[in-house]
This record gives sequence, C-alpha cells and structure tokens, in this order.
Amino acid sequence: MLNIRIEKTKNPKPLPAADDPLKFGTIFTDHMFIMNYETGKGWFDPRVVPYQKIELDPSAMVFHYGQEMFEGLKAYRSEDGKVLLFRPDKNIERANNTNRRICIPEIPEDIFLEAIKTVVKVDEAWVPSKPDTSLYIRPFIIATDPYLGVRPADTYLFMIILSPVGPYYPEGLNPVKIWIEDEYVRAVKGGIGEAKTGGNYVASLASQVKAHEEGYSQVLWLDGIERKYIEEVGAMNIFFKINGTVITPKLNGSILPGVTRDSCIQLCKKWGLTVEEKKISVDEVFKAAEDGTLEEVWGTGTAAVVSPVSHLRWENKVSKIKDGGIGELSKKLYENITGIQLGKIQGPDGWIEVVK
Amino acid sequence: MLNIRIEKTKNPKPLPAADDPLKFGTIFTDHMFIMNYETGKGWFDPRVVPYQKIELDPSAMVFHYGQEMFEGLKAYRSEDGKVLLFRPDKNIERANNTNRRICIPEIPEDIFLEAIKTVVKVDEAWVPSKPDTSLYIRPFIIATDPYLGVRPADTYLFMIILSPVGPYYPEGLNPVKIWIEDEYVRAVKGGIGEAKTGGNYVASLASQVKAHEEGYSQVLWLDGIERKYIEEVGAMNIFFKINGTVITPKLNGSILPGVTRDSCIQLCKKWGLTVEEKKISVDEVFKAAEDGTLEEVWGTGTAAVVSPVSHLRWENKVSKIKDGGIGELSKKLYENITGIQLGKIQGPDGWIEVVK
Ligand SMILES: Cc1ncc(COP(=O)(O)O)c(C=O)c1O
Ligand SMILES: Cc1ncc(COP(=O)(O)O)c(C=O)c1O
Repeated sequence: MLNIRIEKTKNPKPLPAADDPLKFGTIFTDHMFIMNYETGKGWFDPRVVPYQKIELDPSAMVFHYGQEMFEGLKAYRSEDGKVLLFRPDKNIERANNTNRRICIPEIPEDIFLEAIKTVVKVDEAWVPSKPDTSLYIRPFIIATDPYLGVRPADTYLFMIILSPVGPYYPEGLNPVKIWIEDEYVRAVKGGIGEAKTGGNYVASLASQVKAHEEGYSQVLWLDGIERKYIEEVGAMNIFFKINGTVITPKLNGSILPGVTRDSCIQLCKKWGLTVEEKKISVDEVFKAAEDGTLEEVWGTGTAAVVSPVSHLRWENKVSKIKDGGIGELSKKLYENITGIQLGKIQGPDGWIEVVK
Repeated sequence: MLNIRIEKTKNPKPLPAADDPLKFGTIFTDHMFIMNYETGKGWFDPRVVPYQKIELDPSAMVFHYGQEMFEGLKAYRSEDGKVLLFRPDKNIERANNTNRRICIPEIPEDIFLEAIKTVVKVDEAWVPSKPDTSLYIRPFIIATDPYLGVRPADTYLFMIILSPVGPYYPEGLNPVKIWIEDEYVRAVKGGIGEAKTGGNYVASLASQVKAHEEGYSQVLWLDGIERKYIEEVGAMNIFFKINGTVITPKLNGSILPGVTRDSCIQLCKKWGLTVEEKKISVDEVFKAAEDGTLEEVWGTGTAAVVSPVSHLRWENKVSKIKDGGIGELSKKLYENITGIQLGKIQGPDGWIEVVK
C-alpha cells in the first residue's frame, strides 16, 4: 500500500460558478499529485500538494529532447453524488506502453491508480455535476536531468493535474468537418505514433493550422508510407459504417489505441454489429460515399466521446455525410458511453471504478 | 538595434579548473539569455540574467505537446585570445526553419545573432582555451501557455544557455562503431525530421539503448518508407568515400541539414573532390565494403566535428572500415574545420563571426 502524503492548500480557489462554461483545459483545481524518480532509487515521495508551479533547470532534458508522456481520462459525477472513473486501467496500461517506447521507467499499475484516486478524492468538490461536464485528469511524466545530451534521463517527475471541463462542443453532440491531410505525416510504423508523447502532437500543428484556415476543425491522418490508408484524427480514432459494417483502422503501431475506440468496438459487437479492424484506404471511403453505402463516420476520444463527422475533404473532393446530420449509431454510442460513464447505464464488467 | 538588459550575477561560480575534463553538457555558465513572446506583442524583454531555474505551470504546453525547438553551436577561443563563432548564420537560419515547421514564431536573424553574441560576451571568461575545448551554445524555445489542448501556443520563452565543453571523445579524433537500425524509425518524409525538435530525439532513445547494449556507440537511421536508404546518425550526418567520390545522403525532408555537413561538402569541393548528395542504400555501402571500394566513412556534427566510423553493423553483418583506423580525408576535414574554428586557418568568407 502506497503512503501518499497529503498537504492541503491554505488558499483554496473559489469553485467555478454554476454557469461557467468550463472551457476545456483552462481551469485547474486546488491540488496536484507529484512523485519523483531517480535511477537506483525508483519512484519515491508520492504526495498531493497545492497546485503550484514547478521549477526546472533550463537544461532540463524535457525542454530539449522531448522525453515526456501524458494520459487523459475523466472523473464523472453520478446522479447520486458518487465520483466515477471510466476504464482507468486502460489508460494506465497505455501509459506504461508509452513509457517503454520512450525509455521512461514504468509506474506500477496499483500505484498509478491509487495516485489518481487520491488526488481526485482530495479535490472531489471540483467534480462538476451539470450535464456533459466532468473532471479531466491529466497524468504526465517529464525528464528533469539538467543535462544536454541525448540519452534516457535518470530523473523524472510524475504529476497528475485536474481540470473541470464542460462539453467539448458547447452545443453538445455536434458534427465536425474533417480535413484529410495529404502533405504532412504524423507518425509512421517503427516511430512513436502509438505512444502518447508530445512529439506526435507537435508534428500535427502545421496541418491543423492549415485545416482551420480552410474551415475544417480536425485533421485526419493517412499512413506515412503509401499515403493512402486512414490512420486517425488529431486526438480521436475514426470509425466508418459502410453497408451495415462498422470499420475502424487496425492498430498498426502508428495509431494511438484509444480507450473510447475499444469501448465502441465492444459495444457495437455486443449489439450484434459486425466490426472490422482493418486497413482502410481513403479511396474506399470516398467510393462508398459516392455509391451511397457510407452510412456514418464518427471520431472517438475521451474529450468529446463521440464526434459525428459531417464532411470529409481530401485533395479537391469534399464528401458530405448523412446530409451533415448525426448518424443513428453515433448517437446510440454517445448516449450509451456517457450513460455508462455517469453510472446511469450498466456497462460491461470492470468499466467503472468508484472513487467515492 | 536591440536593447538587451543585462543583470549580472552577484554570486559568480568558480570557473572550472584548468584540468577539468569539461564533460559535455554538464557545466553551465553564470548567465543566460531570455526573451518572451506573446501573441499580439511579439518577442519582448530580451535580457541577460544570472543562470537560474525557470518556473512553469504544470499545464505549460511544452510538457504535454512537445512544442519545443533547439539549436547547438560553439564559441572558440583563438590563440590570440579572441572569441569566435562558426557559421552562426546557418544555425539561425535552421532555427527559423524549425520554428516554421512547428508553428513557433520566428526570431529576426539580427536579434538572434545579437542575443548569442551578448550572452557569450558576458560569460566570455568561460570560453576555455585548452586544445579541443569550446563553449557550447544552446539556444532553445519552449511553449509556455498553461493550457491543455493541441494548438500552437500563444506564449513562448526563448533562452540561450552556455556550457564549456571538452573534446567529445576524451582521446580526440576517435573511430566510432555504428549500429544501422532495422526496427525503429526516427523520421519520415512529411514529418518533422528536418526540424531540430525534441520529438525526433525521443523517438531515437529505444534504439540507442539497444545499440549501446550491443557495444555500438551510435545509431544510423534508414528511411522510414523503404527502410533501405541511409539517412543520418543520431546527432550527426554521415559521409562515405567510395572509389574516390564523396557521397552523403541528399536532404530530403527527414534529415537534419547539418552545418558541419555543409562545411564538409564545401571544403571537399574546394579540394577538387567529387561530392554527390544523393540517395544511397545500405546495400550499396555494404557492397562497396565487400569489393574494397569503401575507402572511408565518417559522421559530422557540431559536438565531435568529424567522427571516423570504424564499424557498421546491419542485420547480422558487420563491416570493418579502414581496418578500424582513421581515414585520410576524415583527418584532413577534422584538422581543417577545427583550424578554421580556432582562427588558425583562413576559411571561406563569412564562416567566422568575431564576438570579441
Ligand atoms: C492521437 C490520439 N488518438 C486517439 C485518441 C483517443 O483516445 P482515447 O479514446 O483514449 O481518449 C487521442 C486522445 O486521447 C489521441 O490523442
Ligand atoms: C539529428 C542530427 N543530425 C545531424 C546533426 C549535425 O548537425 P550540425 O553539423 O549542425 O551540428 C545534429 C546535431 O546538431 C543532429 O542532432
């Protein structure tokens, strides 16, 4: 059992007002979790402390060589006032996969979970209760050696910060327009695409800026080798319903294995749908759009849960899906997953972890 | 003209002892340069201040989304006591290329150069004078918005830190053993390989660890698409001399355009050698090794200038070059470039910038 030291803030911030839109990623709670690592000593001194700035040497390795990882999950307030986590074991497992890929020491799974639960419990009052709100949980690790040179670090900080968030799209379930990128590449087989590390996100910025300028809110990436197979959206996995079959790109080493992706696959199968995880080309999707068999397209991710896609733009073609509306299956998935997250619907065994 | 505020330290550190080996990247000088950026305001408040830790919010974007860039160059002490920079304009140009690729606001070239010269002048006493020593200069930029979400930041810090360094290899010009990577990929066309940003280095760690375990000091990367064309070493570009011709991989978008690489090409051409920048496959290199036409292999980079390569390992083949010794041309390049850097040899116009 972990001995987490707790130091409460002496200057609690006011909680956000009931009508605060809780803009994603901008408000932070009163406390944070922090734990150190040193080679030879392992992870040590787990503690919950007042939310505060961190001090690092300007030569700290994270600023230069990108050895950093993060995760993202949420705590939900159920109608009867409980605080629930959705499949935290999946995030913890993925965190350690990321750690292994980028040579960060792993964190024992039980310690990781206890750290999350402890800091969420301390800031429990910050878990909002309005519809479509939640407490976003951001665990992350950074390399801190004051050293200029490329090698795995010997010292790290593991932190968990918390941010109350409103609906990702203020209007709720909202179709998004997607730009299929044909110039830049996000990740390639053999690279770090399946790890949740900064290098994949910085690689996506230029494309995102271009897409926004053209009126598209998200970028869909193609594979880096043939530039024709669909991979994933900037911060979502992607699904297609073609002729009754649900299709999503197979995990191939360059795609992030999304927790929401896995949850969608499991629910669709439970509902008797055929789900195929396979290589799917952008050509196939555009052909299905033309011949009328492309029934739905949606993205999946922790932030927005399910995002119906209304438009796909590729080179000079734009395909409008479902007349720009919300598909039936997208809606059903959204309602079921959010229902499970809020404890209103009974999900598969082990999907909900009660914090309080 | 830039108005750089200078605040000198009240607690200068002792200079390293004359016999200190100055281990690369571990000792930092008394001062650092720092300048802020805010959208709408541009770069502002350039200043030289005592070397000190920086304070950042744990949500600072650099910790999560990898928006960070760096450069590396050196100041040299000439025999007559001057302080010289080697081709800083090339580093500054490359810095802004990196900035554009990863959506960091550019820094005007004259301001960048003045910042380097000013901080080096303040810490001039730290420029060492023993053979094979220099002052390593590390400019870098990090995204600092306290915000969780993937987009280019609105606030940045640009800093320059300085580190006196000894010879990269304590024994001087020293042949290295190189591991040609066949599992992992560093970068791919369309990605961020030609930018000097953390994401490329974190991607290289796992491979470096594996190579070290096998007794190889550096990793040579192949292209991410066909996995057969040679790209570059972890922190060096690579050259081959085959049958009298000097060959180095063409800049293709996934390779860092090294300043030392460019300098080697220019000098070799000046000396009447044929230099080809082209796609070269690992097969070609191993065939040349077998038929005896592979005369020399060397890496080029700011840290070690020229590193002769003694062994290349690819899959299960190991090729020993020049009986493991140092090639003539590698030696001539090393002596000429270091000679120019120290002001002993007259280099091409514009290669040397006098700080003091
Ligand atoms: C690149 C990328 N793909 C997919 C996802 C979706 O993963 P999850 O459903 O676990 O949030 C995310 C967000 O976490 C992501 O950053
Ligand atoms: C990936 C990579 N390639 C090549 C180089 C060599 O570049 P330069 O000669 O400018 O130091 C470096 C080091 O700076 C590097 O990091």
